[in-house]
Amino acid sequence: MPLSPAMIDAALTYADTQMDQSLGRLRELVGIKSISTDPAYKAECQRAADWLVTELNAEGFAASARPTPGHPVVVAHAPKTAGPSVLFYAHYDVQPVDPVSLWNTDPFALVEQKQPDGETHLVARGTSDDKGQLLTFLEACRALRATTGGLPLNVTLCLEGEEESGGKNLPPFLASAKDELAADVALVCDTDMLDPQTPSITTMLRGLVGEEVEITAANKDLHSGMYGNAARNPNQVLAEIIASLRNPDGSVAVAGFYDDVKEVDATTMASWQTLGFDGAAFLKDIGLSIPAGEKSRSVLEQTWSRPTCEINGMSGGYTGAGFKTVIPAKASAKISFRLVADMDPDKIRAAFRAHVRARVPADCSVSFTEHGGGPAISVPTTGKYLQQARAALADEWGRQAALRASGGSIPVAGDFKRILGLDTLLIGYANADDRIHSPNEKYNLKSYHKGIRSWIRILAALAG
Amino acid sequence: MPLSPAMIDAALTYADTQMDQSLGRLRELVGIKSISTDPAYKAECQRAADWLVTELNAEGFAASARPTPGHPVVVAHAPKTAGPSVLFYAHYDVQPVDPVSLWNTDPFALVEQKQPDGETHLVARGTSDDKGQLLTFLEACRALRATTGGLPLNVTLCLEGEEESGGKNLPPFLASAKDELAADVALVCDTDMLDPQTPSITTMLRGLVGEEVEITAANKDLHSGMYGNAARNPNQVLAEIIASLRNPDGSVAVAGFYDDVKEVDATTMASWQTLGFDGAAFLKDIGLSIPAGEKSRSVLEQTWSRPTCEINGMSGGYTGAGFKTVIPAKASAKISFRLVADMDPDKIRAAFRAHVRARVPADCSVSFTEHGGGPAISVPTTGKYLQQARAALADEWGRQAALRASGGSIPVAGDFKRILGLDTLLIGYANADDRIHSPNEKYNLKSYHKGIRSWIRILAALAG
Repeated sequence: MPLSPAMIDAALTYADTQMDQSLGRLRELVGIKSISTDPAYKAECQRAADWLVTELNAEGFAASARPTPGHPVVVAHAPKTAGPSVLFYAHYDVQPVDPVSLWNTDPFALVEQKQPDGETHLVARGTSDDKGQLLTFLEACRALRATTGGLPLNVTLCLEGEEESGGKNLPPFLASAKDELAADVALVCDTDMLDPQTPSITTMLRGLVGEEVEITAANKDLHSGMYGNAARNPNQVLAEIIASLRNPDGSVAVAGFYDDVKEVDATTMASWQTLGFDGAAFLKDIGLSIPAGEKSRSVLEQTWSRPTCEINGMSGGYTGAGFKTVIPAKASAKISFRLVADMDPDKIRAAFRAHVRARVPADCSVSFTEHGGGPAISVPTTGKYLQQARAALADEWGRQAALRASGGSIPVAGDFKRILGLDTLLIGYANADDRIHSPNEKYNLKSYHKGIRSWIRILAALAG
Repeated sequence: MPLSPAMIDAALTYADTQMDQSLGRLRELVGIKSISTDPAYKAECQRAADWLVTELNAEGFAASARPTPGHPVVVAHAPKTAGPSVLFYAHYDVQPVDPVSLWNTDPFALVEQKQPDGETHLVARGTSDDKGQLLTFLEACRALRATTGGLPLNVTLCLEGEEESGGKNLPPFLASAKDELAADVALVCDTDMLDPQTPSITTMLRGLVGEEVEITAANKDLHSGMYGNAARNPNQVLAEIIASLRNPDGSVAVAGFYDDVKEVDATTMASWQTLGFDGAAFLKDIGLSIPAGEKSRSVLEQTWSRPTCEINGMSGGYTGAGFKTVIPAKASAKISFRLVADMDPDKIRAAFRAHVRARVPADCSVSFTEHGGGPAISVPTTGKYLQQARAALADEWGRQAALRASGGSIPVAGDFKRILGLDTLLIGYANADDRIHSPNEKYNLKSYHKGIRSWIRILAALAG
């Protein structure tokens, strides 16, 4: 059901007047410690799912939390209506909060912090990734329903609880719920904007392979005086393996790693060059100045269109206060690879494991644990829905929406294509400085407010 | 006051009959969690010192816990008598117990475990290193006093509480207490035997340099998708630095590291070759088979007479359960060097720091924390007291006492020489399989029992 300009304005005005209530709901949701990767927070993940089900049912959706072998998926259907069907995705789980000592405030208590530049930061774990983004859509639906009596098109929501922990259970769930999730296009709200003024649709995302590797040397921890030199030190072995993963020119040294990596096409590269991305400023903002990846590539290429290998964690021996002269029995690392188009996650995982195995001394052993993975994705930039959404974003933000890439990974977009046959519009309002996955994560109040308004306009535009 | 053979026998018999009480006292002392390196256990260290003071005063010593900027030093004087004076040293602090999950029993509850080979293991943190060894001497004094009314020579005890945490406060204390610690020879009970049948006097020990290095890259933790490739990963930087510390031939790659390292003299090497040390069996016992140090050196040389560099701990990024796609801001490692004769700890520390600094990217920073150090020590094998002690050990164990080296570090022997002008007899009853610094540390009941008997004979022998 197409909406008149007056009806859209009424919904936008309603959203403006309800911001206090909208913030109250965000405060409630971020207060739930839904850290999906840590089994200790399993009940909190269920609690977040239940909270969403309650809210959605109160707003006229038919919502329920669907059990999986891990955390539940929340599915909600708006009442059937005329017009196209959209499937909206976001995730209610969050990253761990350690090191807690680096947070300036309680990670699970939303704080509004007025900034010198006039922005207000909403500080708490998950405000940006992804609870705040998730709620922009729910609040838009609420405003439309309050002012127009319903939604202008068919809306189904699919809210995941394992995005931050490998998301292994979502693809089988999508396959099992294929019929009820049928739609014309998928909407995913888990990406950021090019800059705080420029709305963005992300059309390329890197894929991911997560691996944990553990090296075992001696059959017990040893005294480094008694055994030092003669006994293999797994910290040393692991460090040498990690060092071997990068070449001096910054490229990844795993054999075959770049075999399937293609150059970005000229049209896309030309459009990126119009975006005004400043690599030096990007690094300066995080206190760095020298790009660490392939020396021949710009910062934009390194993060958007080139694969990487990052050591996300490493640990071995005594790491507490003081000193302990131990040679540990084991050392381990969590390592992830970001992939670009055409790279096969299984092939990269196998190549990595072969690389490691070739470097483990004969009297040591190695074990691997898989931590999720998925290929890179690329969304066509020519579709009708993308053009409608892009125009709606321009109406809200007063400037053309950028078509951008991102170095992050959102495997669900690939899953939607593969399992449900859907193209995805990746539209989000986060900013690069939101400190997602880091202490003091924040979401701009402006992102939250204009995000809600953007979805009102996009839903109206998609309704035709 | 020389003792007659009958008096020695009486003391030995007394020790035999009092083993239950002797074990009870060991049980009490290991029950005190005196982990010196962790500030959380400061009160427990004081409690261990106080326990010793009480025990010693009850046995006729004039004992007190002397405050230092760290944990106290317990000093005790036996009543003045005729004959030479000995200064006995051991330490009452212990290593941390993590990973606690690898302990089969409570680390601080002494358990007696009967073994298939007939030995009984006394299992708990500190039974071997060094509380059990410390008590062998106290129990010997107790037996002599109970049966002869006193000690046959002048005895002063100096019991340290910071041996496992750098021991920075002991040298200034020794300097300040130089007069009251004056003696003819020092006795240190913190070493092991060549094998469970062969009593040993250790005449060479490696020195130690402890360092902690922290690499800082970005000014906060980063999302590895958004920043991966472009942002320097301190885990990668640290791993590359650690990898650079060893050459492919197993030698340490720090410039100048071997400059002052001399070959062991031919006499000593020849005497070592009579000891029947089996390098392959030594490694097999810990589940390894390939010596990790300099390829041209035997296992015995690698551990007794060659310096080493060991990564005792390393840590960076997310190391909890599951996975977190973070690029951390910082990564750190605890690294120790074992030194041999003539190597200068300050020179090695400076060379290491220069090695690291040369490998830190220009936009990253590095900080160092010193964790103690001291030179290697070498004790003359020709002295009268050493010969007397060696003969006493042979009487107890029924075979000649080995003169051996050890890869461990006991800086106090160097301090005694430098500050008090004393040579040290390093005599201990630990075994290589005692799992010191590791989970399930044990001390053989035979070590405890025959250790007590050995000291009775040694004190009698030194009395002349």
